[in-house]
Amino acid sequence: MGRDLTPLFDPASVAVVGASDDPAKYGHAVASQALRAPGRRPVHLVNRRGGTVLGRTAATSLSAIGEPVELVVISVPAAGFEAAVDEALACGAKAIVAITAGFAEAGPAGLARQRTVADRVRAAGAVLVGPNCLGIADNTTELYLASDRFAPGGIALLSQSGNLALELQLRGEPYGLGFSRFVSLGNQADVTLVDLVEDCARHRATSAIAVYAEDFGDGRAFAAAAAAAGKPVVLLTAGRGSASARSAQSHTGALTTSADVVSAACRDAGVELVRTPREMTVVLAALAALAAGPRTAGRRTAVFTDGGGHGAVAADAAEDAGLDVPELGARTQERLRSVLWEQSSVGNPVDLAGMGEQRPLSYADTVGELLAGDEVDAVLMTGYFGGYAASDGGLGGGAAGGSVLAEGETRAAKEIVAHLATVPKPLVVQSMYPRSASCRVLAEAGVPVFSATEDAARALAAMTGRPASGRGGGPLPPLPPAAAPLRDPGYHAVRAVLADAGVPFPAAREVTDEAGLLAAAAEFEGPYVLKALHLLHKSDAGGVALRLADRAALLAAYREMRARLGAPAYSVEAMADLTDGVELIVGVNRDPRFGPVAMVGLGGVLTETLRDVAFALAPVPAGRAEELLRGLRSAALLDGVRGRPAVAVAAAAGVVERITAAAAAHPEIAELEVNPLLVRPDGALALDARAVLH
Amino acid sequence: MGRDLTPLFDPASVAVVGASDDPAKYGHAVASQALRAPGRRPVHLVNRRGGTVLGRTAATSLSAIGEPVELVVISVPAAGFEAAVDEALACGAKAIVAITAGFAEAGPAGLARQRTVADRVRAAGAVLVGPNCLGIADNTTELYLASDRFAPGGIALLSQSGNLALELQLRGEPYGLGFSRFVSLGNQADVTLVDLVEDCARHRATSAIAVYAEDFGDGRAFAAAAAAAGKPVVLLTAGRGSASARSAQSHTGALTTSADVVSAACRDAGVELVRTPREMTVVLAALAALAAGPRTAGRRTAVFTDGGGHGAVAADAAEDAGLDVPELGARTQERLRSVLWEQSSVGNPVDLAGMGEQRPLSYADTVGELLAGDEVDAVLMTGYFGGYAASDGGLGGGAAGGSVLAEGETRAAKEIVAHLATVPKPLVVQSMYPRSASCRVLAEAGVPVFSATEDAARALAAMTGRPASGRGGGPLPPLPPAAAPLRDPGYHAVRAVLADAGVPFPAAREVTDEAGLLAAAAEFEGPYVLKALHLLHKSDAGGVALRLADRAALLAAYREMRARLGAPAYSVEAMADLTDGVELIVGVNRDPRFGPVAMVGLGGVLTETLRDVAFALAPVPAGRAEELLRGLRSAALLDGVRGRPAVAVAAAAGVVERITAAAAAHPEIAELEVNPLLVRPDGALALDARAVLH
Repeated sequence: MGRDLTPLFDPASVAVVGASDDPAKYGHAVASQALRAPGRRPVHLVNRRGGTVLGRTAATSLSAIGEPVELVVISVPAAGFEAAVDEALACGAKAIVAITAGFAEAGPAGLARQRTVADRVRAAGAVLVGPNCLGIADNTTELYLASDRFAPGGIALLSQSGNLALELQLRGEPYGLGFSRFVSLGNQADVTLVDLVEDCARHRATSAIAVYAEDFGDGRAFAAAAAAAGKPVVLLTAGRGSASARSAQSHTGALTTSADVVSAACRDAGVELVRTPREMTVVLAALAALAAGPRTAGRRTAVFTDGGGHGAVAADAAEDAGLDVPELGARTQERLRSVLWEQSSVGNPVDLAGMGEQRPLSYADTVGELLAGDEVDAVLMTGYFGGYAASDGGLGGGAAGGSVLAEGETRAAKEIVAHLATVPKPLVVQSMYPRSASCRVLAEAGVPVFSATEDAARALAAMTGRPASGRGGGPLPPLPPAAAPLRDPGYHAVRAVLADAGVPFPAAREVTDEAGLLAAAAEFEGPYVLKALHLLHKSDAGGVALRLADRAALLAAYREMRARLGAPAYSVEAMADLTDGVELIVGVNRDPRFGPVAMVGLGGVLTETLRDVAFALAPVPAGRAEELLRGLRSAALLDGVRGRPAVAVAAAAGVVERITAAAAAHPEIAELEVNPLLVRPDGALALDARAVLH
Repeated sequence: MGRDLTPLFDPASVAVVGASDDPAKYGHAVASQALRAPGRRPVHLVNRRGGTVLGRTAATSLSAIGEPVELVVISVPAAGFEAAVDEALACGAKAIVAITAGFAEAGPAGLARQRTVADRVRAAGAVLVGPNCLGIADNTTELYLASDRFAPGGIALLSQSGNLALELQLRGEPYGLGFSRFVSLGNQADVTLVDLVEDCARHRATSAIAVYAEDFGDGRAFAAAAAAAGKPVVLLTAGRGSASARSAQSHTGALTTSADVVSAACRDAGVELVRTPREMTVVLAALAALAAGPRTAGRRTAVFTDGGGHGAVAADAAEDAGLDVPELGARTQERLRSVLWEQSSVGNPVDLAGMGEQRPLSYADTVGELLAGDEVDAVLMTGYFGGYAASDGGLGGGAAGGSVLAEGETRAAKEIVAHLATVPKPLVVQSMYPRSASCRVLAEAGVPVFSATEDAARALAAMTGRPASGRGGGPLPPLPPAAAPLRDPGYHAVRAVLADAGVPFPAAREVTDEAGLLAAAAEFEGPYVLKALHLLHKSDAGGVALRLADRAALLAAYREMRARLGAPAYSVEAMADLTDGVELIVGVNRDPRFGPVAMVGLGGVLTETLRDVAFALAPVPAGRAEELLRGLRSAALLDGVRGRPAVAVAAAAGVVERITAAAAAHPEIAELEVNPLLVRPDGALALDARAVLH
């Protein structure tokens, strides 16, 4: 069950090698932080020149300390790095935090160096974070070995960028977000992102895991660890565009994976994928609120405002974020009417239309009625609320706010909190005055309050549709054990692998001469299909003949094709009935990071031009495969358009499961494709297949 | 050239009817504001009870003032509204600001009342803003007739929501944004959004026009006014989703238009369309920077950072916002290399990789080199810059920042400003420390500084791709004069209208009997097409027969169809050669707000399932039509896929121009559709057409 990282996060003693009095050196910053909890554990400073550092006598070497040290931070020039590691291991270190840079990120020679060091560390039974990292911190064990201070809290932050970690820390402060741990990932020569996710999953004081990563290492294992974590994992990554992919490569020498694959893996693993530090903070704030109390899942949202414009803008933002904003039913409308004015709107968005200024408690009455019914799962309150009790001018300007109204508004906030205590449904607030006394009442009760409409909508989307555990999806379907390797990438060999896995094909025989052709044709009924084998694009090359009515037509086609193409072998097949069929494409590619990744989409010329395809980690269970198919932009074609009958999507999904499981069991297959997979009202049939071996 | 709104924005005297000492009444807030510039013009307070209001003697009626009043604010209960308007007009008022509510927004009776009042106002040669509005303000004439104060500046804010206007004002403050005018649009019974856009276009002190509107009134005229404004127009609107459309309807009784049409109109008119108050503020901040100096257009962006993570995230955000982040060429990379470290990245994103901490001026050197070359049009700087000179803890946390580094960073900011003065290219900054001394140096020189990456990217997108005037596109193509109305929506009548406009069709004759059929067939060569006329979906009903090889086949088809369908009339047509053709659909619908709106897309079953269509205001010039076609998701089909030749897109675009111009000249046509428009390598041909009349 994962590596033991106790010496890393809760060492009995610490030494900082390269501790310095020079503020321009990183060894100065780390040493200063390390000394912040002097009573917790011995902290030794090591500087080869000796003397004093930060007012303490520095040892000239680790061995000069005269006692074992469990964790050693190494912040020395690259030339002395290996020697420092060796000395640390010799002194009994069980954990090393390697700040020193100039390894994998500097080129192949550096990569080889860091691999050698990591081997030595592992051989000694120790663990190493880095090299090329900025340190670690654990607020739950008072371990401060990074230059930045992190407010204490429940988020474990694992980051491949120090500046982004700093930004997340700054951004989290207004929302009261704090951190259990911080790890600067560096080059992950030994301790990897996966090790850390697994350890943070076990770490009780950690309620959510926030990751910034450019290089996922074993991406499949990362997805599996996240899916099994039992707590939310939020991922900020880059590489959607070509420029960021270039950057990530030059920054850490990372192998990049297409954004489609990363986003498929995140969806399968229940990881919240975000695009910017700001979005990550919004999602973390939402998850922190979720962690505070169990909430029901569901996307039906009531948008509630005190000014029509805010309601309309927030309703659009909510729908953009994937929430539903249904019109409220007659009963709920009546109940709202009973507490509101005639000019208020009660359809959804619900709009006080001025009543809040006359009777601030109408805010609370409305939230109460909305939460009480069974028509909505969540409430998004937006607009002026907070303005009456704002003393600081809110977002920037000066709010008037008579004290009677201010008191009423704050009382309304308290009543809203009381309503929330009775119903397990989330409330998220957008306010122009997020720092007002009344908004503070809400925030202190765990209601996320944002100044921007889109942030409130994004937060609510992160809070809904998740089970109480805070995670989407279950554990990832495991990779099947490797089957006997396929050595022949020929068409009939690939067919055989798929057919063995239960993928249905029309009858077919491989033939190499006319006698074989006629013998094959005798085995099943026409019409026939003839395919020339061992051609790359056999359709484009005229190597496929369809609808050959009888043996004579088959023989004629064979002679013509043989004369024209000279292919050594051919496949004789029973022609499938294409009536009312839709052609799909099902492919599995092996990603260097995420392993086998499935793609399903509409087949034919449209696959290329419209890229109407969906991705998932392979193997894909049938239920998930059906979701992927139903989520295609052109999914309406599956239900039959212009009077055509619906096709057997469930049967197709079953075949997708079998194809993707077969591909996953063959690591030697770099690419596998069934194209087309014909889906008719009565079932699905694979009409062609090809594979590329590594 | 538009209505004279001088009495509204610069009246010689003002009266507030309904001025009150009761802080719960809006007449109190307006009266207090009105008195803010006592020396500028006489301000009279009117309260039917007399006495004193705000320490001044209140007149009991307008006529009791004893002198003419040019502008009258009316904030009285609805019952007394008409009387107050009549008295105002009698006292010589040339402008009325009607706060009173309870008109169109309350139902049809209210709509009728406000129409009657508006007629009376216009007959008196006056103008009226509202009713159901929150007042107006003009900072350039010291006219304060709304409850909020707006910092002075260049933005004219025209809003249908008071709270959203307040939020925009609060959000603009950190960016130094200020307002020339504010108008609460209310129900637009007399003065409309269009009148106000036209007036603000003429208003010298206004540099940008910001609009929040749910009801566009004459949307076509709004688009035309915005296109002709000669200054940027930024539009926040709602109604993308079903809920916000419901809300807008109930809020102001607005007729809503589909989001596709609004966004097409904005693109055609060069209006910046935004989704939230926050996005509007970001765009306005960008436009304010643009107004400060001429900038070249172009989307090639250098992303420049001091930490790889920020560079990668910003590069993605820039590409998401529609900017290009091209890899830099060898010459620029060499020039960057000459001022940077070995470990710096120079490809784009450009990454100092720690050099900034050693030599803050490297920020300025890099920006200078990036601006000097001709490879990029703009620079997006992102990350820590500002942290060394931050005294306020930036986004929230505590930055250390030695004073030597702080001074160096501030000097770097000044050098960056000096570089910018020499090159007309924009710089936008994302910083974790936007309020730092060094970021303030940049901001004061007109560089937009944001704390969020996505905001910086959005701002740069708003600054690039615009000509120096700050507007996209030219004036809207004018609506053609109305042609003689089409009275017969029959197929051949519709064809004739289109053919007269130059739309090519295959030869065709309408026939009603066998003799006519054979006579028609004698006029042109087969193969033939036979269509039954006056059927709604003639294809689905089996009312179209294709590829009738000769007269015998035509006659047989005619007899069969006649017996089966009994249609009274038929069309005999020359069958077009479909080889290598792509079928398009071209439609024009008449929107109640925006007039004729064109839709082009891929024809056939995919039109319905994929909605791969694009919209524009009709008529659509051929160049714009070609852009629309090339922008379709399936545009690759037009270039030929799998060995097929490319089709004549320019010819198709020319036909789109003719179809949309013809439809625009026929206001009696509610819907016109050419489907399919066949495009082949050698030209385009309309194969069918239909129209629906109002």
